[in-house]
Amino acid sequence: MPSSEESFAWVTLSRAPALDVRRLAKALEILGDVRGVVGAADAALEAAGLSPAARRFLSGPDAGLSAAERRWMDDPRHHLLPFTDPRYPRLLLATESFPPALYVAGNPDVLNDPSLAVVGSRNPTAQGRETAHEFSEYLAERGLVITSGLASGIDSAAHRGALAAQGATVAVLGSGIDVIYPQCNRPLAEDIQHQGALLSGFPLGTPPRPENFPQRNGLIAGTTLGTLVVEAARRSGSLITARLAASYGRELFAIPGSIHSPLSRGCHELIRQGAKLTETAGDILNELNFSAFFSPAAGAAARPSAASEPAAAMDKDHKILLDALGFDPTDLDVLVVRTGFKPAAVSSMMLILELEGHVQAAPGGRYSRVVRSRR
Amino acid sequence: MPSSEESFAWVTLSRAPALDVRRLAKALEILGDVRGVVGAADAALEAAGLSPAARRFLSGPDAGLSAAERRWMDDPRHHLLPFTDPRYPRLLLATESFPPALYVAGNPDVLNDPSLAVVGSRNPTAQGRETAHEFSEYLAERGLVITSGLASGIDSAAHRGALAAQGATVAVLGSGIDVIYPQCNRPLAEDIQHQGALLSGFPLGTPPRPENFPQRNGLIAGTTLGTLVVEAARRSGSLITARLAASYGRELFAIPGSIHSPLSRGCHELIRQGAKLTETAGDILNELNFSAFFSPAAGAAARPSAASEPAAAMDKDHKILLDALGFDPTDLDVLVVRTGFKPAAVSSMMLILELEGHVQAAPGGRYSRVVRSRR
Repeated sequence: MPSSEESFAWVTLSRAPALDVRRLAKALEILGDVRGVVGAADAALEAAGLSPAARRFLSGPDAGLSAAERRWMDDPRHHLLPFTDPRYPRLLLATESFPPALYVAGNPDVLNDPSLAVVGSRNPTAQGRETAHEFSEYLAERGLVITSGLASGIDSAAHRGALAAQGATVAVLGSGIDVIYPQCNRPLAEDIQHQGALLSGFPLGTPPRPENFPQRNGLIAGTTLGTLVVEAARRSGSLITARLAASYGRELFAIPGSIHSPLSRGCHELIRQGAKLTETAGDILNELNFSAFFSPAAGAAARPSAASEPAAAMDKDHKILLDALGFDPTDLDVLVVRTGFKPAAVSSMMLILELEGHVQAAPGGRYSRVVRSRR
Repeated sequence: MPSSEESFAWVTLSRAPALDVRRLAKALEILGDVRGVVGAADAALEAAGLSPAARRFLSGPDAGLSAAERRWMDDPRHHLLPFTDPRYPRLLLATESFPPALYVAGNPDVLNDPSLAVVGSRNPTAQGRETAHEFSEYLAERGLVITSGLASGIDSAAHRGALAAQGATVAVLGSGIDVIYPQCNRPLAEDIQHQGALLSGFPLGTPPRPENFPQRNGLIAGTTLGTLVVEAARRSGSLITARLAASYGRELFAIPGSIHSPLSRGCHELIRQGAKLTETAGDILNELNFSAFFSPAAGAAARPSAASEPAAAMDKDHKILLDALGFDPTDLDVLVVRTGFKPAAVSSMMLILELEGHVQAAPGGRYSRVVRSRR
């Protein structure tokens, strides 16, 4: 848990322009920690490789915290997670770019639980809304976190479905975490904070500008094991989220519909491009190799922690995979050969095993077993 | 054109039990022609390799023609096509098993025109029926023959769509060609005879027994470039037709629908297994590389014959393929390498080029160009 001084420094950094997270990582190493970076002289920052724009900002009048920021940080339900925090979503760190810090309102621990993105049109059919609600309720009941974008339509139905199951749900915003959009979703956002988390990569007070949504969609795709598109027109934001998910190697699910419904066109396009045609929520659990980890009836409370889970309770395939994995970092390709499983299956099982703490990712997309006795 | 004596002999052979068509081909070679086979002594038939059951039949009292058979053959609209007839469907000869002779009522020439099978449930939704009709109408207008099974529901709608476009349609029966089933489709069958053909591999008078339908489905799949499944439940006859088509290397198309409709389940299963998700009739033309061969507005009458078609009117990809193909028989695999096209595309373009008379199939799945000056 970072000190409040550290947190304040991260708030400043989260507002810095042109801050490449890889350069920042190097600067943190050179200058000690985040307080070192924020307090450093311009020459030191230049030596550490920070961009001129970032340096100008850090030595300028905007580097100090605003009253609103201090008030926001005072609320115990609010968290700023730097990318160095173990609670920062691990799956997001595996993507090409991620915010240096994330604003979280609610429970930051759900961000590293296995999660499915459920997205779609802001103006769905009644059937589409119902499908989003039903699938999310079913999956949340079985322990999957439902992540979406708090928009009207499919997004809201997905969040509500997870809430109805007493499951966890994460809403990723295209605005500052203190700017709830659309306004009619303020009560929903309040419920989500109590049963999951609101998440934003933008500084406080950022309005929901159209240009923010690609980053928002990247967080939705990047923090989840897969993305389900319920209803989407061609050339819609949901397809961007879906393509980002595919580019991160995550699973893609799409629900088919009538050839006469414009809101099925986007889903059909995704299916043609390789997304799994999805008829039931069970299809998704099967594809994620997820069923064995959770008791269908017990709900989120019954989820075993990685530490307490006896090996005997593991899915057979997961055990085979763990047995095939040594304590030296191993390529996924090698695991495919050793186990005879399909590459996609190995990849999704490894994500789950990582989230459950059984394995850890090493540089170059390799994995190794977690040595229990050293934990 | 066979003589009537030859035709009568083929009627007899079409009724012979346990008649393997490959053995029959050998016997025809040894004994001269079909009259030689039907009139041969038992010892000669045994020497030619015919089965005991076939020999018993040919020397027994049932070998002679019935009055009904003679009457049927007297009608100039009726044809019996032995597999040695150039009008016998060439695509069917490329399958593993085919009837030694086919009963045809109507125009036998359509059997070698490019054709699409359109099949589906006998109890479709109103929407499914409309889709079958619309797609068939659109495709028949552009010169594709629509082949189906004369059943109620999707099959009937497909035939009617083709008829509405003044296009050609073929109905393949699971009974003798003189046994129209269901009876309510007699007027439809009459129309089909005038604008295409009825087709059966069964002797006259054969009732529509359930065990006949696999062979009927094999003819539907075997005579066509591809199969479109409009609406089908899981474990339905349409899926059998679809799987046969796939096993013959033909294209498979399926129309998606609501996840709540049991009649979409079969289509969704096919899409998951690799069938093309089909939203429009244009998708089918594209996939078959068919568009360039036919003028969209002109209808069936405007179809160019292979002999008159100038090379300049050819689809660019077809020309590339022809250029890559020598006059020596060439493997499809070699063509894939030479052209850089996908194997499925090469395979479907070769079927069209063959039907159009530009190339000919050689043994072992190889192809060569047709030498024009020798025709």
